[in-house]
Amino acid sequence: MTDRMPDRAIASLDGASRTLALQRLDSLTKPLGSLGRLEALAAQLCAIQGTVSPRLSAPNAVVFAGDHGIARRGVSAYPPEVTAQMVANFLEGGAAISVLARREGFSLTVVDAGVDAHFAPDLHLIDAKVRRGTRDFGFEAAMTRAECRDALARAERIVHRIAADGSNTLILGEMGIGNTASASVLMHGLTEVPLPDCVGRGTGLDDHGLAHKVELLTAACARCAPPAEPLELLTEFGGYEIAMLVGAVLAAARDRMVILVDGFTVTVAALLASRMAPAVLDYCVFGHCSAERAHRTLLEIMQVRPVLDLEMRLGEGSGAAIALGVLRAALVLYSNMATFTQARVSERVG
Amino acid sequence: MTDRMPDRAIASLDGASRTLALQRLDSLTKPLGSLGRLEALAAQLCAIQGTVSPRLSAPNAVVFAGDHGIARRGVSAYPPEVTAQMVANFLEGGAAISVLARREGFSLTVVDAGVDAHFAPDLHLIDAKVRRGTRDFGFEAAMTRAECRDALARAERIVHRIAADGSNTLILGEMGIGNTASASVLMHGLTEVPLPDCVGRGTGLDDHGLAHKVELLTAACARCAPPAEPLELLTEFGGYEIAMLVGAVLAAARDRMVILVDGFTVTVAALLASRMAPAVLDYCVFGHCSAERAHRTLLEIMQVRPVLDLEMRLGEGSGAAIALGVLRAALVLYSNMATFTQARVSERVG
Repeated sequence: MTDRMPDRAIASLDGASRTLALQRLDSLTKPLGSLGRLEALAAQLCAIQGTVSPRLSAPNAVVFAGDHGIARRGVSAYPPEVTAQMVANFLEGGAAISVLARREGFSLTVVDAGVDAHFAPDLHLIDAKVRRGTRDFGFEAAMTRAECRDALARAERIVHRIAADGSNTLILGEMGIGNTASASVLMHGLTEVPLPDCVGRGTGLDDHGLAHKVELLTAACARCAPPAEPLELLTEFGGYEIAMLVGAVLAAARDRMVILVDGFTVTVAALLASRMAPAVLDYCVFGHCSAERAHRTLLEIMQVRPVLDLEMRLGEGSGAAIALGVLRAALVLYSNMATFTQARVSERVG
Repeated sequence: MTDRMPDRAIASLDGASRTLALQRLDSLTKPLGSLGRLEALAAQLCAIQGTVSPRLSAPNAVVFAGDHGIARRGVSAYPPEVTAQMVANFLEGGAAISVLARREGFSLTVVDAGVDAHFAPDLHLIDAKVRRGTRDFGFEAAMTRAECRDALARAERIVHRIAADGSNTLILGEMGIGNTASASVLMHGLTEVPLPDCVGRGTGLDDHGLAHKVELLTAACARCAPPAEPLELLTEFGGYEIAMLVGAVLAAARDRMVILVDGFTVTVAALLASRMAPAVLDYCVFGHCSAERAHRTLLEIMQVRPVLDLEMRLGEGSGAAIALGVLRAALVLYSNMATFTQARVSERVG
C-alpha cells in the first residue's frame, strides 16, 4: 500500500452556500437568529453539500467493534467477552443503536474490526477483522504499523461504498470493552492534557477501578511515551475499531459526507484524523457530550459544541443517533418555513 | 363560576411504576445508568401514566396567542401586529411550529386567547378570545379578575377536550408580541429575583431597547408592587395567553398528561400554576433552555434541567417540539431494548 495523502482530496467547505443559507435563515418568519444553534447546523449542511437545498440522504450508522489486550487486566466494569456479545445484540436488534435505527429510520452497519471471537457469516456484519483483539499496550505496541494501515484502509473502503450507495450522512459509533482506556492515552498524546484528566469511569468503574485504570495507563505511558505522529500514536496505543473510526472520518470527509460524531472514543478518533487532515473537522457534527468526564474537556479543547448534553455514556453511536433528529429538525425548518414576504409578516422595527 | 380547587384533583405520581421502570432500565443491555437523562425521562413517563408500559399518544401542541397593551410602547423588536400575522402563518403552515408538527407528527391547535385582530372562522383556530389585547399594565391592571378566571377556564376546557379525544401528551407554546415583558414581571413577582435580572432581549432588542424595556417594567412595578397571590399577580401583569397557559398546565396535570414546557414564558406560566397546585411540576418535562437570559436563572431556581440547550428563542412551542423527539427516543429505548438475559450478555463484574 502506498502512503496515503488524504489531505489533498478533502474539499474546503463552500462558503458561498453558507452565506446564502444564512441569508435565507434571516428571511424566515422568526426573530433574527432565533433558531439558535439550529441555524449554524443548517448552514454547515449547506456548506458541506455545496448547495442551498441540502438533504440528509440515507443516513447510515457504522459501528466498529474491537477488543483490547489491556482489557484482560480489568480496565472496565464489564468482562471482555461483552464486546462479542454486544455485536450479536446489534445484529439481533436488541441494542440501543439497533432500536434507534428502527425508530429514526437509518441503516445500521456493524463492522468486526478486531473482535476476539469468531462470528458466523451474517447478512448484516462486515468481517473486516484485522486480528482477534489488540496486543496489551501495557507491554508492547497495540498493533503493528501494517495492521494500523490495514484498519484505516478497510474502513475507508467501507465508507466509500456507503457513500457510493447513496448515503451522504454517516453516524459513527464503536463497541469495545476497554476502549476508553485506549482513547484516554490517545487523548493524552494528542492534547498533552495530563493523563489522569484524560481517564474516566468508562462503562461505570468505581473509585477503586478508576484508580487501577489510571495506574495501568500511567505504567503504559512510562513504557513508551505517546508518540506525536498520529499513525505512530495509533499503532502504539490504539484499537482496531479506533483506527477504523479514523479511516472512516477521513473517507467520509473526502466524500463530503456529514459526519455525526458520537462520544468520547469517536471524538478522539476525529481529533486524530484531523491531525492527518485538518479539514475533516468541518464535516463533523458533534452529536453529544457524554458523561465520560474527559469528553467535555476534549470538546472544549477542540472548541466545538455538541448538539446534546444528556449524560449518556453507552457508545454504539447512540448519542449521535439522537442528535440526528435535531439535525433533521434544523433542516426541515430551514427548508420549509415561510419567509416574511410569503407570509406577509412585518419585519423587525429599525 | 365557583372557586377552583385544582390542587385536590391532581394525582401524585405513581412511585411504584417509577421503581419498576428503573429496575427494567437496569436490566437492559447497556452499562448501568448509561442512558443518562433519558432514563429519568422514561421513569417520569411511567410515573405519570402509572404503568411500566407508557405511551406518547396523539401529542398535541397548543399555541395560545394574545396581545399586550404595553407592546404599543415598544418592548419588542417587532410591531404588535405581528401577533395576528403569525397566527395566520401558523394556520397556513409556514411557521416553525407548523413545520415541526408535520415533521414530528403531532397535532397543532392554535388558540386566539386575546389577539388584537379579527380572524375569519378557520377550521384550525379556536376562538377563545377574552378581549382584543390586555390593558397596558404600566398604567392599570392588565385584565380584570373575571377575565383572568375566564382565560383559565377556557384553556382548561380546551385541554380537557384534547385529553378526552385521546391525547396524553401536551406541548405548550405561545405567541404574543410583548409577552416576555409580562413574563419578566411575573417571574419577578414569583421569585423575588431583582426585576432587571428577569428581563431579556425577547425577540432581539438591542441594548437601547433592553434598557427601555427595563425602565418601563420598573415603572410598572412602582405603580403596583407585584402581588404575591398568583391569580392577583396574573390579573395585574399577565397576558391572556399566559393565563391560558396556566389553565392548560392545571388541566393537563389533572388529566395526567405529559406536559412539554417550551421557553421562558411557558416556564413562568408553569411556575405560576405550581403556586396554585404544586404537583403540576411532576407532570412537566422542560423541553429546552432558551436564549432569553432569565430562562436559565428561572430553571435553576426551579431546580429543573431542560432536555435541550440550543439557544433557541422563537417560542411557539418550537423548543418543546424538538424535545419531543428526545422523549420519544427515551421511550423506544426503554420499551424495546433487549435485557441482559434475553441477549445473553454478561453483566458487570462485582
